[in-house]
Amino acid sequence: MKSVKVGLVGLGRLGQQHGDNLAFRIPRCELTAVCSVVEAEVKQARERWGVPYGYTSYEEMLANEELDAIFIASPSGFHCEQIKKGLEKGFHVFCEKPLGLHLAEVREVENAVNRHKDQVFMLGFMRRYDPSYQAAKEKINRGEIGEPVLIRCYGLDPASQIDGFLAFAKANDSGGLFLDMSIHDFDLARWYLGAEASEVWAIGGSYSRPEFAELGDAETGAAMVRFDNQAIGLFVAGRNCAHGYHIETEIIGTKGTIRIGSIPERNQAVVMNEHGVIHECVQGFIERFEQAYRAEAEEFIRCILEGRKPDVTVKDGVESTKLGYACKQSFTTKTLINVQEVILA
Amino acid sequence: MKSVKVGLVGLGRLGQQHGDNLAFRIPRCELTAVCSVVEAEVKQARERWGVPYGYTSYEEMLANEELDAIFIASPSGFHCEQIKKGLEKGFHVFCEKPLGLHLAEVREVENAVNRHKDQVFMLGFMRRYDPSYQAAKEKINRGEIGEPVLIRCYGLDPASQIDGFLAFAKANDSGGLFLDMSIHDFDLARWYLGAEASEVWAIGGSYSRPEFAELGDAETGAAMVRFDNQAIGLFVAGRNCAHGYHIETEIIGTKGTIRIGSIPERNQAVVMNEHGVIHECVQGFIERFEQAYRAEAEEFIRCILEGRKPDVTVKDGVESTKLGYACKQSFTTKTLINVQEVILA
Amino acid sequence: MKSVKVGLVGLGRLGQQHGDNLAFRIPRCELTAVCSVVEAEVKQARERWGVPYGYTSYEEMLANEELDAIFIASPSGFHCEQIKKGLEKGFHVFCEKPLGLHLAEVREVENAVNRHKDQVFMLGFMRRYDPSYQAAKEKINRGEIGEPVLIRCYGLDPASQIDGFLAFAKANDSGGLFLDMSIHDFDLARWYLGAEASEVWAIGGSYSRPEFAELGDAETGAAMVRFDNQAIGLFVAGRNCAHGYHIETEIIGTKGTIRIGSIPERNQAVVMNEHGVIHECVQGFIERFEQAYRAEAEEFIRCILEGRKPDVTVKDGVESTKLGYACKQSFTTKTLINVQEVILA
Amino acid sequence: MKSVKVGLVGLGRLGQQHGDNLAFRIPRCELTAVCSVVEAEVKQARERWGVPYGYTSYEEMLANEELDAIFIASPSGFHCEQIKKGLEKGFHVFCEKPLGLHLAEVREVENAVNRHKDQVFMLGFMRRYDPSYQAAKEKINRGEIGEPVLIRCYGLDPASQIDGFLAFAKANDSGGLFLDMSIHDFDLARWYLGAEASEVWAIGGSYSRPEFAELGDAETGAAMVRFDNQAIGLFVAGRNCAHGYHIETEIIGTKGTIRIGSIPERNQAVVMNEHGVIHECVQGFIERFEQAYRAEAEEFIRCILEGRKPDVTVKDGVESTKLGYACKQSFTTKTLINVQEVILA
Repeated sequence: MKSVKVGLVGLGRLGQQHGDNLAFRIPRCELTAVCSVVEAEVKQARERWGVPYGYTSYEEMLANEELDAIFIASPSGFHCEQIKKGLEKGFHVFCEKPLGLHLAEVREVENAVNRHKDQVFMLGFMRRYDPSYQAAKEKINRGEIGEPVLIRCYGLDPASQIDGFLAFAKANDSGGLFLDMSIHDFDLARWYLGAEASEVWAIGGSYSRPEFAELGDAETGAAMVRFDNQAIGLFVAGRNCAHGYHIETEIIGTKGTIRIGSIPERNQAVVMNEHGVIHECVQGFIERFEQAYRAEAEEFIRCILEGRKPDVTVKDGVESTKLGYACKQSFTTKTLINVQEVILA
Repeated sequence: MKSVKVGLVGLGRLGQQHGDNLAFRIPRCELTAVCSVVEAEVKQARERWGVPYGYTSYEEMLANEELDAIFIASPSGFHCEQIKKGLEKGFHVFCEKPLGLHLAEVREVENAVNRHKDQVFMLGFMRRYDPSYQAAKEKINRGEIGEPVLIRCYGLDPASQIDGFLAFAKANDSGGLFLDMSIHDFDLARWYLGAEASEVWAIGGSYSRPEFAELGDAETGAAMVRFDNQAIGLFVAGRNCAHGYHIETEIIGTKGTIRIGSIPERNQAVVMNEHGVIHECVQGFIERFEQAYRAEAEEFIRCILEGRKPDVTVKDGVESTKLGYACKQSFTTKTLINVQEVILA
Repeated sequence: MKSVKVGLVGLGRLGQQHGDNLAFRIPRCELTAVCSVVEAEVKQARERWGVPYGYTSYEEMLANEELDAIFIASPSGFHCEQIKKGLEKGFHVFCEKPLGLHLAEVREVENAVNRHKDQVFMLGFMRRYDPSYQAAKEKINRGEIGEPVLIRCYGLDPASQIDGFLAFAKANDSGGLFLDMSIHDFDLARWYLGAEASEVWAIGGSYSRPEFAELGDAETGAAMVRFDNQAIGLFVAGRNCAHGYHIETEIIGTKGTIRIGSIPERNQAVVMNEHGVIHECVQGFIERFEQAYRAEAEEFIRCILEGRKPDVTVKDGVESTKLGYACKQSFTTKTLINVQEVILA
Repeated sequence: MKSVKVGLVGLGRLGQQHGDNLAFRIPRCELTAVCSVVEAEVKQARERWGVPYGYTSYEEMLANEELDAIFIASPSGFHCEQIKKGLEKGFHVFCEKPLGLHLAEVREVENAVNRHKDQVFMLGFMRRYDPSYQAAKEKINRGEIGEPVLIRCYGLDPASQIDGFLAFAKANDSGGLFLDMSIHDFDLARWYLGAEASEVWAIGGSYSRPEFAELGDAETGAAMVRFDNQAIGLFVAGRNCAHGYHIETEIIGTKGTIRIGSIPERNQAVVMNEHGVIHECVQGFIERFEQAYRAEAEEFIRCILEGRKPDVTVKDGVESTKLGYACKQSFTTKTLINVQEVILA
């Protein structure tokens, strides 16, 4: 195979970012088809990226035999079905997080992926491809901090987007704070600790906007997890971060600690003025993880070309979703939850 | 009263620090008597500070009518009894944390303090007198971060002291990780949040040293607390911090966040060498809180001279101890604990 | 023009980086030819990037009429001639810094560029395309720091490369410390200050390696510049930076200050261990400016497609070289030098 | 001698700070007399510190035979005369910086100190007693950064004080920017480098306030110094720092670098809000060097009690003043100046 021909479904904000990468920045990759239910988006995308095929039906795109791979950036509710259909048609499939919104469908996807072992399946846990997160993983693997005993993860969206989110959440099922915001953190925790979650207690509140309580959700919340190797997980998620998009991760080991993103600085320019010494902060996930989005797509294409499987597996999606569900259940029932006994919802 | 004459009991490491302050650095304060069961310590202390009276019996020191105030820096197990006796003899009393080790004795002290309302009683929650912690309090009071919704506190002792601690803990009742290490954090949380703890779940483990498990204690642990205003508390305590004495506090509010001590730097000298850019870290509580120890003693003396009461009250000691107990109970029973129903131990 | 066909000359370390960008990461750009005197490099490059044409003679590449633009990444001594020939053949030309090594040749290039006004000429001052440096420029343009009055620039190569540099400098004319290392800083100073250099004094020494003195060069040096608007420039250059590749820039204005790169951190992962809190540092210019190299190439291609001229002009190359020459002259003669009277060398 | 009885002359802002230390915070020190030409200040001071003697005449204070030592915190123009008189009367003498304003008088003081070798003389270069500056010195002495080759010093006063300074400078001889602001930095440079200045070029301007030019002075300026061991000195001084009182020092050595005070943070509380991550800054020398002022006074008293001489000698004052004068001369004449040939002014 000289290059990989990709069909992209979903042309929203993140779809645009993936499209830019697939069309312009990934060696030996051709963005060959785009698909969206919004016809204008399809037209625009074809022009912008010079894409030969455009579809408003996912099934029609799957019928295009020129394609090698499907890239899914559609709304979360469509992920599971689109993955299964893509795999069944024989395509390699990349899917944005989350794997799905319900444990039942997630397990069906797991089965589907396992039935198509010759095709590449990759889930969009792009943080694993961020240089800082990768450096941390290498240090941990080399034993530089001894055994990891505690992981603390912050996933905080900027306050500037709270209105937009509330409007969305009233009309759609966001999955709730932990399933929507902490899913990357759950994946990181499992990746760094090499362990699965055993028990969780999750709390939170609607501190500035009562609408969250009305939705049965939390504006800011925290979950404490006991992992099966006795390691400790602390997860903070929120929708109301005054200073921007704050993704921070800390791994405390028996011989050292690693912190990533303590100051979510936008760049290396620091301003000193009458207010003090000021680091401006990133304001969203694309700004923060631009490089990681490109790197994960590059890895997906390489895996196809080289006949390899990526490190992120469908199991990573299943287990992270399970922990997200357990958090949701703990938050709702106000009790300690045994994660591995969490039931289908 | 021209100056306050103080009798100091306990001449260990912290007693030495308090003695230096009382003898040399506090205006209108005279260190007039010292007391320790170790005669050599009494002799040395009298010489070092030029103290007129020395005792090996606390009761004998209390009989000295020249004294105005008693400063207690003895082992934790003696605190409650010494406070009560000091108050009964009519002295103003300062006592190092913790107030006590058992809820029952702590409540007796609370009653004793309440019966002697004309005397100053102050508990050694010195962090409240640290410039950084004070600045944070002022910012919160001015509404700069809106309503506080989450507090995260780290209290980590340096790994270099782990052997010393284990030797001590095998011979003495340290109180356990949370009661011994997190008590300052519990006080800070109550101070900043203006709320009491409702529920707690505490977990932890013996990650590098099995002796902790043998003692029924944790090497590193975490407690998540729901406060009665729905605010969230995350408390991490540990005995095995590779880089030093790490005291960090973060308060997330609806409009901003304050962090104190993210990098527990020893001073402002940063070294750049082949390892990178390096901040050396403080290695103990006296190094970190030297200024706060002086400031709290100064406040105690001023309160006596000016007929005021300090902001730290006996209730602060009682409530922090209660939360510490609840953590211990949660850690032992592996269950969620209702803090206000915690029973006498 | 649908896309721009580029011929790349020079396949060393930086040529490789440019080739990767031109071949894989720049929209509407085709790397169509490569040229190097080393035949093996040409062969490898053609395979790696799937390039149709390969040359060992620059003149032969210039005869390829399919090409639209020439990208020069050859050794500094060839720049001037290759620019002139490329322009004369009607190509758009991008050239790595420095414009040249001698003032006379640099001025000839200036004339050549001015004679070919319909072609795009761009000089590789890539720092202007780094997000941090761009953010600083925007802040200055918006008046956020008032009038810039002082600029401080550090350009320090890692000690790990000192042996390699000395071997190179013994066999080649490196141009000397200031012309080789500070040329980017001189450009930044002119860009931020909007002024030209008037006077300079430059000093330095061979502190750890006497070979520098033997070469008439400095291991570490500093130049202080008075600009024609009375602004102050402080430039530190060196070949022996223990912690890595340290590029730092500070602009002090009448109302504020901007600092870029105070800690030349490799990524956002910070390690805390027995040595303290440690930021690892970048070790070279490609690691630090990877994004900027891509962005400048993208700008070059866009300028061609859109019929625009880039912000970096040949005059920027001439003036920076002039200041570099003045530093060299000051260092050699140990006197204050009037920059605008610096003579052809 | 059981304790040292001190007479303090000068009760301005810094005199108040010294008085607080001498009266309350220095072991075995008694503040026994105060002196100021402002009678109200004398009265207030006696009450505040419980001082037995008060004077409006320095000569009268010198006649008080109870005193052991004189502490001079009067305006700079009086320093030399008061030192000489104090020494002649047999007192130990501490004097605030600068030693004097003119080279001639400074050399007379040097002779006077040398004639009274049995008395302690100490100059108020308090930075040497700051924990960060001390840590740096120890690291340098231990060879941790190899041979120091470059020192960069910033001494910037807050913009908030610029009006006050201009009012003062119009009525008094401030000594000029370099002599007034950089004198501490000159001392630090000599201390860390172990070398004397050979040549200097100093430039600067009146960037926001033309009054500085009218006074023949600079608002912000820089001096580059060649030291006699070929080390490089970069000194920036200013009166218009937007973010506060910025004292920063960097020493680059052949094997590493030390930086002190890159972020002149007020305390460890960092605020994150809609502007970004913010470190508030110190606003003046007393806030920044509170601890150092106490430590230097403690050292002075200890030297007297223990019959030792302090590390800061009168020569340190003479050489720093010489370099300050050379800067002034360079700034005025716009030429390179040979520091050791600088003539009496």
